[in-house]
Formats: sequence, C-alpha cells, structure tokens
Amino acid sequence: MTQFHLSPNDLPTAWFNALAHLPVPMEPPLHPMTREPVGPADLEPLFPMALIEQEMTPTPEIDIPGAVLDILRLWRPTPLVRAERLEQMLGTPARIYYKDESLSPAGSHKTNTAVPQAYYNQREGIRRLTTETGAGQWGTALAFAAAQYDLECKVYMVRSSFGQKPYRRMLMETWGAQCVPSPTNDEASPGSLGMAISDAVADCMANIDTHYSLGSVLNHVLLHQTIIGLEARQQLALAGETGPDVVIAPCGGGSNLGGLALPFMNDANVRLVAVEPSSCPTLTEGRFDYDYGDTAGRTPLLSMFTLGHDFVPPPIHAGGLRYHGDSPLISLLVKVGRIEAIAYPQRSVFEAARQFSLAEGKLPAPETGHGIRAAIDEALACKETGEERVILFNYSGHGLLDLAAYGEFNAGTMADG
Amino acid sequence: MTQFHLSPNDLPTAWFNALAHLPVPMEPPLHPMTREPVGPADLEPLFPMALIEQEMTPTPEIDIPGAVLDILRLWRPTPLVRAERLEQMLGTPARIYYKDESLSPAGSHKTNTAVPQAYYNQREGIRRLTTETGAGQWGTALAFAAAQYDLECKVYMVRSSFGQKPYRRMLMETWGAQCVPSPTNDEASPGSLGMAISDAVADCMANIDTHYSLGSVLNHVLLHQTIIGLEARQQLALAGETGPDVVIAPCGGGSNLGGLALPFMNDANVRLVAVEPSSCPTLTEGRFDYDYGDTAGRTPLLSMFTLGHDFVPPPIHAGGLRYHGDSPLISLLVKVGRIEAIAYPQRSVFEAARQFSLAEGKLPAPETGHGIRAAIDEALACKETGEERVILFNYSGHGLLDLAAYGEFNAGTMADG
Repeated sequence: MTQFHLSPNDLPTAWFNALAHLPVPMEPPLHPMTREPVGPADLEPLFPMALIEQEMTPTPEIDIPGAVLDILRLWRPTPLVRAERLEQMLGTPARIYYKDESLSPAGSHKTNTAVPQAYYNQREGIRRLTTETGAGQWGTALAFAAAQYDLECKVYMVRSSFGQKPYRRMLMETWGAQCVPSPTNDEASPGSLGMAISDAVADCMANIDTHYSLGSVLNHVLLHQTIIGLEARQQLALAGETGPDVVIAPCGGGSNLGGLALPFMNDANVRLVAVEPSSCPTLTEGRFDYDYGDTAGRTPLLSMFTLGHDFVPPPIHAGGLRYHGDSPLISLLVKVGRIEAIAYPQRSVFEAARQFSLAEGKLPAPETGHGIRAAIDEALACKETGEERVILFNYSGHGLLDLAAYGEFNAGTMADG
Repeated sequence: MTQFHLSPNDLPTAWFNALAHLPVPMEPPLHPMTREPVGPADLEPLFPMALIEQEMTPTPEIDIPGAVLDILRLWRPTPLVRAERLEQMLGTPARIYYKDESLSPAGSHKTNTAVPQAYYNQREGIRRLTTETGAGQWGTALAFAAAQYDLECKVYMVRSSFGQKPYRRMLMETWGAQCVPSPTNDEASPGSLGMAISDAVADCMANIDTHYSLGSVLNHVLLHQTIIGLEARQQLALAGETGPDVVIAPCGGGSNLGGLALPFMNDANVRLVAVEPSSCPTLTEGRFDYDYGDTAGRTPLLSMFTLGHDFVPPPIHAGGLRYHGDSPLISLLVKVGRIEAIAYPQRSVFEAARQFSLAEGKLPAPETGHGIRAAIDEALACKETGEERVILFNYSGHGLLDLAAYGEFNAGTMADG
C-alpha cells in the first residue's frame, strides 16, 4: 500500500460545477402542487439562499468559503491509496487506487457537504436543522457539522437501520443531535429514505427557525462532494499516472459517485461507473421520469431514474443505497450514456468487502463494498485481457459501525437481496 | 489541525530497546514453581526464540524484518497531528500534538506488535496462536496479523467486554479468528485480563503446535511499539519543535505508554506521564513486588507494580486498562522516578473524550480518553502559568466500537468507578 498525500495548501479552494458541463440541459424540478418549474422562492422554506443559488447556477467553479476549508482541513486532503496488496491477491496487471473518505469525523464522504450546509444555514440566521438518514452516515455527518456551528439538529433515521445500527445514534447524540426512527407514524414499517425525507421536511415546514438539509441527490450536494475527485486528480499525477481509465463508486442518491466522478466527466476516455444494489436497482431497472424525492410527495418533482416514490426496498445493510430515485445530474449522465450502471446482490458485495479487508486492513461500509465489488471485477477482467488499466474507486466510508452486518455474513445468515 | 506525514521511506527500520538504557538493572522474571530466574528454555513452550531473545537482549537497536515492514506500511508511518482546534477551545498557550495510532487495521497501536509476533511465530513453524483480550483491541490486532500469516487464532476475551462489545468479536471473526468469553469456567465472573491470560496460556500448553501471544507487559511487546515514539521524534522536528516537554499515554499493561515514551527516556528534560483509571490504580496505589502476570499463577513472577494477581477491577469501559500488574520496564522507571503516574475516574475521562471529539472530529477509545484527560489538564495548567509547553500524547485508538460506553455517558447512567 502506498499513500499519496497532498499538503493542506493543496486543498482545492473551489468546487467543480457539473451544471456548467452538461451535454444536454437538465429538466427543471417541478412544484409538487402546480407542476410548474420551481424558482428560488419555492425552495426558501427549506434551504438557505446560498445553497439555492448553488443548486441552479451554471458558474463552472464555486469558491469554498475559508471558514468551511478550516473545518474540512480536520481530515482533508484525504489520502489517495494504491491498493498494491489487493492487486497482488487478485494477480491483476491493473493498478487499483482508492480515495480514503473514511477518515472524516463521520467516517464517510458525507461530512464534505454537511459542513458547508451547516455553515450557509448558520450564516443566514437558521438555528436548527432537520434531516433524514439511511445507514446513519449522513445523520452522523450533519450532527458533527451542526455542532461546529452551534445549530440544533434532529435526524429522522430509517427504522430498519435505527434498529440495526444503534452505535450511529449514540455517535449523533455524543455530538449533541437528536435521532428518532422514521416513519414516525408507523412503527411496523421498516422505513425508507423517501419516508424519512417526508418526516424531516414536515418538521422543517412546521418550524420557522428550521431548515432542512439533504445528504445526497441535489446538485449542491454533489457540488460539495467534487472536492474528492479534484483531490484525486492531483494525487494520481503525484502517483505518476496520466489519469484513471475507470472511476467507480456506489450510487444511492448519487453524491458518492458524483463527488469522485464528476470532475472527470470531461475526460473523454475515462469510464464512469455507478454501482447499486440488485434489490434497489434504480439506474439499471428504473424508468427515467419525473417523480417525487420523498414518499409522501412533499418535495419537488425531479427528473431522474426512479423505481417509483412508493417503492420500499428490502432492509439490506447498505442503507445508504436504499433510495427509490437518484440524483438528476447522475440520472441525466446515465441516460445520455456518459455514466455506466451496474447492480450487485448483497452477499457478493460482502465477499468483496472481506477480501479487501484482509488485503488492505480496512473494513469497508456495506455501501463502499459495492464499489469494491465492481473494482475487483474490473481488475479481474484486466487479468483476463492483460490490460494495465488504472482503476480509481471511492472508499467512501468505513464499516466499523456496520459490524452487525458482517456478523450476519460470517454466520451465513445474510439474505442475498 | 495540521498533520505531519513521513514518507514510507522514513519508516524506522529498527526498534528502540529500552533495556540498553536503564538506570538500574531489571530484576529477572522468576519461574512460577521454582522461583528461580527463568531462562530461554522456560519460555520456549510459549514464545518463539526470536521473541525470547528480544525479551532479554541489551542490544540498543533491533532491526525490523523487511516482511514486517511491508505489512506495517499498510498504515505506517502514522500521522503526527497538531490539535489546534482543541488548543483554541481550551485557550491554552500549549502546543498539543498527538500520534494517530487509530489508523491501524485493528484501530489501535496493538497491531504494531501483533504483526511481528505473528511473523516470528510463523517463521518458527507455529500453526496456531492463543491470546487474551480486554476491550478487544489486542484480540482484533492479533486476528488481523494471524490472517496475514495463515495462522489460526483463538482469543479469550474478558467476559464483561465480550458482552459490552460484540462488534469486536465480529471483527475478529471477519478476519477468521475464534473469540470466546473468559473465564471459560465461571460464567458469573466479569473476568479480568489476568484470568484471560490464564485461559490462553493453558490452551497453549495443551497444544504442541500452538504458541501464546501477549499484547502488552513484556519487554518485546514494548520494543515493537517504540516505532510510535521513533516516528514522533522525526515528525516533531518536521513541525519545527525541538522536542516534547511532556509525553503522555494511557497505561494498562504498559505498551501504549512505552511505545510513545521510551524513545524519549534519555531526553533529560522530557517528562513522561502514565495515566491509569482510578478503579485500577496499579502504578499510583499498587505495591512494587514480584507477582504473577495472570490470576491462576501459571506465568513467571514479574517484578512490577501490582494490585495483587487476584485483584478483579470493576467492569469499567476502558477494558484495556483493567490489569492488576504493569510492565516491569515501566514499573522500574516509575519506581526510580523517571516516569510519573496519575489516575482519573471514568466520567472525567469521557468528558475529556467528548470535548476532544467535538474539537478534532475523532472519537477516542475509552483507554485513549485517559491520555486526553491528562493532556487537557496539562494544557489548562499552561493556561494558568502562561507556559508554551509542547504536549505529546498517544491517540492510541478510536472509540467507534466503544459507542455503547458513550451511550451510557450521554444518558448519564455511567458509574464513576
């Protein structure tokens, strides 16, 4: 294993805005009642103006505020790591690199957007944030960020994960946030990200000092995550590579993939690959259509791949990938063929995660395991053909708070949903 | 926060042997039956000859095998971090640095000795290792190391931790080890490190292809950990410091403190501070005497501070510090006044850990929290006097698998043992 570190001075100071580089225009979000395109005023009850602007602007680069950089420097730049021991174990001529986003306070890439979101909200006078969380990684990230700006934080956690992952709740509480299971009105339901979004939005609409914060899907969230790919590009050069041949990341709401891959979207020969669970195959089996972001139909209608806003995925362990829809940005790029999509069943993902763990000494989150599965298969394909491809994937989060899932996998009792 | 990274080429290639630098000679270990000084032959049923030699040799530097360095490079050199946001939160003129050992596969410094121990055992034809573990950090580390060398591994885990920390067991199992609660013959006992050592040694003695592996206390274990302090010395120079004024680490069996502090033992003006729990105050309230390393009296008698080998500490959350004895090396240096010792009750430790977590974005293990408590108090003393001391502490492990303890602390139900 070789780590490639950037100095704190090389931390990117502007985000990469994919909206400036789209091959075709995006369809606008529509108001859930009128079905007219939404304007900034429609979004003001939910988000601060700075984020609404970032959601819509075609400016190619957007400066990262200094106060945000000061907090990002707690863990950024994250290392780029060459997984040489995994390469040896696989016997592949490919060179496998990963960006280690597990080093953030919340243990995943989610903190990259939680910090600027909390910052802009506090600057505009907001006192309290609500949000949804699946596996708990986003809720943990927002809890940490809110504490940095003295904001209250209430997290609606998908009920199936709330039961599976009590440590996530305890971590949120350690940082001063409140965490409750969702849906709040049906204790028998396993919940879904769509339902939890409905709960969090309803809470926000009922409280004037409160805004809502979303951990994925929207343009401004993907924008904040592009710092991952921007760093990776510099680090691949440090490693002596001209660039990646293929960029791989898990895809639930899209911010994991978008963060690593969008900065490479203009590189013609770089393949971009979204990996999703077979049990929630939004990009591989969904339809491209307008649909609500949540289950109750409170959010704007988004133009995206969707399984239908009432689709409730089975309670697999990659809770962060249990979303009926997908980022409109990612969806559009899949539709036009710029991004590929692939789906894997759960047990093959854990098999890959365990193999990675033995080779590289890090335990991946189940979501992250999806990207690892695809990276390993890509490397094995290179073994067949003898190609020396450069594979880059997002090590988006650690699995230390997901060990109950590994326990099931080790015991052979895991469903292969 | 500023991180100071060494390149992989700057990884130390030899360990620092404190036995070459003692102000007075150590008393030898005695055979548990004959009470005569033990020789290499007495230890052969337990350890490979390479480790027995390291236990006794006065050679000032001992080369680290290349095959061990190859695996250590998975996470080493670990960063030295300046905790600037903690300094600001405290309003101290002190400069606080920590060595981040939480980045290892097992999430703590323990992997530093697990790898060479597994390596030397495999090289001498051993097929299976047994060991004890308290909080589970050592057992996890040995499970990972054993998997690297295709050794079987059986871990006897202190029963109170086995119940509190199921995720540790699942991680050991993910890496192929077997983990059982100790004592094996009394399900009502909360267990202790001393009892678990008895179980692991008995298993070893009953199986000819098996050796025993110890995670702390012994000279060779502390030797392997000195890579921490050797790196830290280089990194403090990178940070522009002439050296630390005070070096702080938790102290249970002694390898955490020894690893960071022993390489500074010859620096006359550097204070070295051991931090232990008030509920298991070996160095601060124990007697200096010969005593068994385990509860059943199967190990050699060691010259050390001890609370008595039948002392069973209350089931506090810093399971790694629940040991009746202490490293003979550390004990001697405390006895002659080269190392200071201090004890803290549990809740004040968690208060410090939470404060650190909000400032620096990392959740410390309860053991690590002891060092943080002392570092914070040292920094606050500097605030009183205006002194710009350089404080160095060992961030020995993360607390992500100890979140149940934080849950108790957050709920206000934690005993202050």
